[in-house]
Formats: sequence, C-alpha cells, structure tokens
Amino acid sequence: MLGDLVLTHDMIVEGVHFLPGDPPADIAWKLAAVNLSDLAAKGAAPLGMLLGYSLGSGAWNGAFIEGLRQAIDAFGTPLLGGDTVAVPHHAPRSFGLTAIGRAPAGGAPNRSGARAGDALFVTGTIGDAGLGLELARAGEDGTAPVRAYRRPVPLLAEGRALAPQVHAMMDVSDGLLIDALRMAEASGLSVTIDLARVPRSEAARAFAGDDRAARLAAATAGDDHALLFAASEAAVAASGVAAARVGGFAAGQGLGLMDDGGEIPLPGRLGYLHA
Amino acid sequence: MLGDLVLTHDMIVEGVHFLPGDPPADIAWKLAAVNLSDLAAKGAAPLGMLLGYSLGSGAWNGAFIEGLRQAIDAFGTPLLGGDTVAVPHHAPRSFGLTAIGRAPAGGAPNRSGARAGDALFVTGTIGDAGLGLELARAGEDGTAPVRAYRRPVPLLAEGRALAPQVHAMMDVSDGLLIDALRMAEASGLSVTIDLARVPRSEAARAFAGDDRAARLAAATAGDDHALLFAASEAAVAASGVAAARVGGFAAGQGLGLMDDGGEIPLPGRLGYLHA
Repeated sequence: MLGDLVLTHDMIVEGVHFLPGDPPADIAWKLAAVNLSDLAAKGAAPLGMLLGYSLGSGAWNGAFIEGLRQAIDAFGTPLLGGDTVAVPHHAPRSFGLTAIGRAPAGGAPNRSGARAGDALFVTGTIGDAGLGLELARAGEDGTAPVRAYRRPVPLLAEGRALAPQVHAMMDVSDGLLIDALRMAEASGLSVTIDLARVPRSEAARAFAGDDRAARLAAATAGDDHALLFAASEAAVAASGVAAARVGGFAAGQGLGLMDDGGEIPLPGRLGYLHA
Repeated sequence: MLGDLVLTHDMIVEGVHFLPGDPPADIAWKLAAVNLSDLAAKGAAPLGMLLGYSLGSGAWNGAFIEGLRQAIDAFGTPLLGGDTVAVPHHAPRSFGLTAIGRAPAGGAPNRSGARAGDALFVTGTIGDAGLGLELARAGEDGTAPVRAYRRPVPLLAEGRALAPQVHAMMDVSDGLLIDALRMAEASGLSVTIDLARVPRSEAARAFAGDDRAARLAAATAGDDHALLFAASEAAVAASGVAAARVGGFAAGQGLGLMDDGGEIPLPGRLGYLHA
C-alpha cells in the first residue's frame, strides 16, 4: 500500500514456476494474471504493469509478447514499461511483473480482519489448476483443468464488489486449507472448513471424481486464484457476487476440517509451499 | 508515468550485470541506486521500492539485505514488498527492482524536449564508474572509482531542483556520447559536445590521466548515473545546482565532437550497448 495504491510483484523462474516446454504465451498470461489476482484480492482497480523480461529466441519472445498482449486486452491493464535483459546461454530464465492498482475508496481488505462468527466464503472454483498441472505433466492438453492451470483469470470485478463488504480477503494461491489457516492465524482466530461445501467445477469432478480423496486433493492444491474471504451472509448478498460458504471463524486457533457431517483428520500437507 | 507517478523497473543478472564474486551488499545498493537514478532524471520524489529476489546462501542473503538496508536508509525510500524465489542450483541469479516516485508538480521532464539553442549540461562526474569497472576487474578495490562503480549515488535532490528548469533530462547510464545523441535524436536536433568541458573527478584524472584518450574513454563509459540535461544558462542558475556546460543543441541531426577548440572524429563506440 502506498497512499491509495496497491502494488504487487511476482517473479517466475524456468524450471521452478514453469517448464521450458510450456507455451510462452501461457507463461506471459499467467505472470500477468497472478499479479492481477493479488490486486483482485485487495479490491483494487488495476492501473498498469511493468515487466522484467529475460530474452529468449525470437520465436519464443514473439509468442510471449502475444500472450502478454492477450492478457493486457483481457484485463484492460496497460504495460507501462520495464526492462529487458540477456541471460547467459542455457541459463534458466526468469521474469518479474509489477502490477499497480488503485485501492477501493473504503480501503483495501487484508487477511487479518476476520471476526469470530464470520462465515468463510470462496468465489470461483477450487482444485482445477492443481488437476490441470497433473494433466499437463501427463501430456494432456486442451482440457478445461489444463486451461485453468495455464490461463488463470483474476477475479477483478468480484474483488471490487466484495471489498467494501468483507472483513478479510485473499486469493487462494497455495491451497484452500493452508490459505484459510493463514487468514485465521493473521486474524487471531480458528477456522473450520466443510470439505463437502468446497466449490469444484464440473470438469474437475468429471476428471477426478468426487470422493473425499478428490475433495482433499482439490482443497490442498495451489494456483487456483479464487477469492477467499470472511464476511456475513448478508454482506455477501449485498455484494451481488456468487460465493460458496465453506466454513466459519471462531475464537481459538488452528484449522478444523469437516466432511459428511463430522470432523475428519487434517491431511499431512495443507497446500503448496513455495520457497 | 501513471497520473503523477513515475515507475521504473530494472533487472540485473549474474554473469551479465554483476559477477558471482561481487560483494552482495554492493549489488543490492546498485540495484536500488540505478532505479532511483531513473527517478532522479524525472525530478521525482521516491516513494518506495518492490524487490524481486532470487535466494542464495544464507550468508549471501544476509549481506545483500544489509546493502539494501543501507540504500533504504541513504535514499529514504522504503521497501514496500516484492517476491522471493528459489532458483535451480548453479543457475545464475537475477534480481529485479521496481521504484515508484511522485512526479514534480509541473510534470516530469523527458528526453525529447530539448530546443535548438539549449545548452547541454552535466551534473556529476563522467567516467568514474567505467574506470572503476576496469580497476575492479584488475583486482583493485577500495579506490574512489571502484566505489563509484559499485555504489553509485542517484542525484535525487539535484533532479528535483532541475526538473522545473530543464527542457529535457536523462541519466547517463550507457555513456555520455551515446546518451546525448539519444536525447538529440528524441528531440529532433543535433548536439555538439566539447570533450575538454566534460567534468571528470580528480581521482579519475589521477588514475587515468587527462589526455584525449582518457577523456574519450570517460565520455563513452557507462554506469555513471550523472544527470544530463538541456536548458538555458539562466535556468540552471535558477535551479541552484552546480552543473558543467558540455555542449549544445542545434537544428539538424547527429553528434559532433570538439576538443582543443576544433572538431574531432567520433570514436567507433559511443557507449555501452545493453541487450
């Protein structure tokens, strides 16, 4: 935050955040989208982006620029400038993007404002991107989950409509369970999630089924960029945004998990942990 | 430019912009300084920085952070956020920094506003950093030129005082001759530079002498981050900033070089060309 500006900067590195064979247009799109998703979670209106670019081959550069142009058009956010560097031959390449947005008039929500008694909501679906990563690794292409993984859509309009109504908000980047726990910890509360209420796409259910294992896999997968927020039912109704109530906050600490009407043990891994 | 904001983003890559053996604190300082120098050339007041950081060893990270802290203190510009990534073992590391500043009330100068009849001025000295790079490569350390190369100081106060008075301004990052030619080309003019008037430090003259070869080396060396601007003598006097008049603009195009009262041929290389 800088006055009424919201600023975000994410980097991606070849071999870590993307693979050398990934389509360059998708890499560009995703780099823009993940930064704009951070703005969405702040209810911010995007103003522009700056790119730090490692040069590749001519064809690779052209495809990357085309993907970036598509993102610029889709999200209405201009590229304002940046820097281009050459990297040593065969070195992994890295890209950075800074996105700048204008915070909502009432201020940007953060992850620490949840209150005891708030419900926990999700806008968007959970688990598609994680499934898409698995499918992409297996050579599947062109399916809806792979598209969700490679071409995430930042929920900018939803974030702006929700921001004045919520007590806390963030985007689900590392997994629903771990991100909900982070919100609870930042707010000094406990959180309970009902696995049966976690919104999953029809495509994800068709590919991975809908048993508890599939639901747990979805709730611990990263890269979804859905919005996760703490609010009352009435406040969400006032926002006009469709959202699934997946749990709630109470005094205490920690994460509780429910399924089929009873408490279940936590999985060993709550989400994706970045370096 | 974004409203009254000035934004800049520069990346540096190991093996290209710095060497694995360079002191990490100096790398951090320089990364901040070169971005803030871009703001200085716009007459902007720095508001904050975002860092994109590739993790190294614990000791390396600690030293880098210490250098960044020194820059934050020296330039009064807070770190607002950023991103940290792990890179594959033995991969060259890269860093990006975004600096945000507030433009002066009358607007930020650019490089295209020079007018025929304007004088060309330099604030700061020319050639120290290029000489410092040579000395550092030869194993010299702790000399003033090496310090100028590793710890450049953005001329923020000078830039702010000059901005309302100049017709065009930029920082000398690739070499005086090439950057002056770029200003002339952007302004649709020709520029003449008198080599004898180019300001050089006492240390640089002591190390490299003051003959024409030394002066040409200084005028074609990069990384100085002096300010180069087009203005009238009276305007510069009004700014209160000490500056050397090194040449002037006229109708036409191209760069003319003078020394000892006569025109001399241009060197084969006018400056440092980045990728």
